[in-house]
Amino acid sequence: MDDKIIGRNPVLEAIRSGRSIDKILVKKGKYEGSIVPIIKKAKENGIIIQETDKAKLDAAAEGGSHQGVIAYVSAYEYSDVNGILNAARDKGEPPFVIICDKITDPHNLGAIIRTANCVGAHGVIIPKRNSVGLNSTVAKASAGAVEYMRVAKVTNIVSAIEDLKKEGLWITAADMDGEEMYNIDLKGAAGLVIGSEGEGVSRLVREKCDFIASIPMAGEINSLNASVAAGVLMYEALRQRRLV
Amino acid sequence: MDDKIIGRNPVLEAIRSGRSIDKILVKKGKYEGSIVPIIKKAKENGIIIQETDKAKLDAAAEGGSHQGVIAYVSAYEYSDVNGILNAARDKGEPPFVIICDKITDPHNLGAIIRTANCVGAHGVIIPKRNSVGLNSTVAKASAGAVEYMRVAKVTNIVSAIEDLKKEGLWITAADMDGEEMYNIDLKGAAGLVIGSEGEGVSRLVREKCDFIASIPMAGEINSLNASVAAGVLMYEALRQRRLV
Repeated sequence: MDDKIIGRNPVLEAIRSGRSIDKILVKKGKYEGSIVPIIKKAKENGIIIQETDKAKLDAAAEGGSHQGVIAYVSAYEYSDVNGILNAARDKGEPPFVIICDKITDPHNLGAIIRTANCVGAHGVIIPKRNSVGLNSTVAKASAGAVEYMRVAKVTNIVSAIEDLKKEGLWITAADMDGEEMYNIDLKGAAGLVIGSEGEGVSRLVREKCDFIASIPMAGEINSLNASVAAGVLMYEALRQRRLV
Repeated sequence: MDDKIIGRNPVLEAIRSGRSIDKILVKKGKYEGSIVPIIKKAKENGIIIQETDKAKLDAAAEGGSHQGVIAYVSAYEYSDVNGILNAARDKGEPPFVIICDKITDPHNLGAIIRTANCVGAHGVIIPKRNSVGLNSTVAKASAGAVEYMRVAKVTNIVSAIEDLKKEGLWITAADMDGEEMYNIDLKGAAGLVIGSEGEGVSRLVREKCDFIASIPMAGEINSLNASVAAGVLMYEALRQRRLV
């Protein structure tokens, strides 16, 4: 598996090398021996540590000798919010940023990154927690778009939105009970927030947004698949941006 | 598994009962004993018969005693093209039909049926061959939309398009190298053709269409996920239809 580093020494080396690590799984119980410096280093580097039982570690290791620890590493390198804004500046374009609030399905995240590239967005922001990271399934579902798109992983989506607003972006969340998307100005410096598959945009995030955009619903079902909803809203933004 | 009927008697009974069967897997080799009337009945009913080896049947049966035959049944009942057109007539609306040309990923077909419901389409047409049918994965991915949407399974997509054109529908395929979708009239009686994940719309189907609609591409990647592309085009149609 290209997305896991298994065993104490390999995991410690990965942390030391500064490699981007999504999270570390550690066996529940008292930390002893060489597991102690791993936990210490991981904490210093702000890496998420999840305790789990031996059976789960065994399954995740798929026969490898995990010695109580497995690290999930990124298949791709992350950018940051400034990197995304700089990319827009370099192109001389108003920033166009996609913010994913807790997308957990790797196929959806991959499809969203792919669509973000197709509409000319400058980057995608995902949260560190409660979100799938840039693993190989996401990379595959993105059809190669991860190679071109800047993806920033942030500790707090709300603060990231505040930062983007300070930089002059207008932030629009896709959600029910909002203004119909056609009536919202998605031109200029813009951030679009896409909610999670089950719960939509979280309350704290929604409150920070300038606009709530709703996709019209003409049938019995009142919501779209997360990557389809993201695609429809991103393309409405592209349509408006091209009309300028 | 709710999508498979395993073994000779159960399969024969399913065919006799007129239950909607996607296909039958049969062990390669000379047909002997009670397999003979199964093949005969299946052929009479136009059911697709696929020959395969014992290992594949064993795997598909997941421990069940298959006796050389497994039937894949629909989780949901199919409608037909007339049923879809009648549904439009009953609502007093110009028909709006989605035609899927060989979608093989059940998550994509489910998401497309879901979106078709959200844009108020009257039905979805899929081909009998080279397409996933209405199985439980599709039903789940549709978020319940299969309960509301008419889905017709046709022997030949090209003939189905000819029939729809006789009924006054204008048929638009989503494909590269076409007119930008904003410039195509998607109002009134309309059929939208969505191509397969890998190959897009097949040549014979494309030639039958009135228009080729292209989704604008502003990045390095030049295609969207099939269900996202379908969603973007369906929502462009809805936008135009609501402007009337």
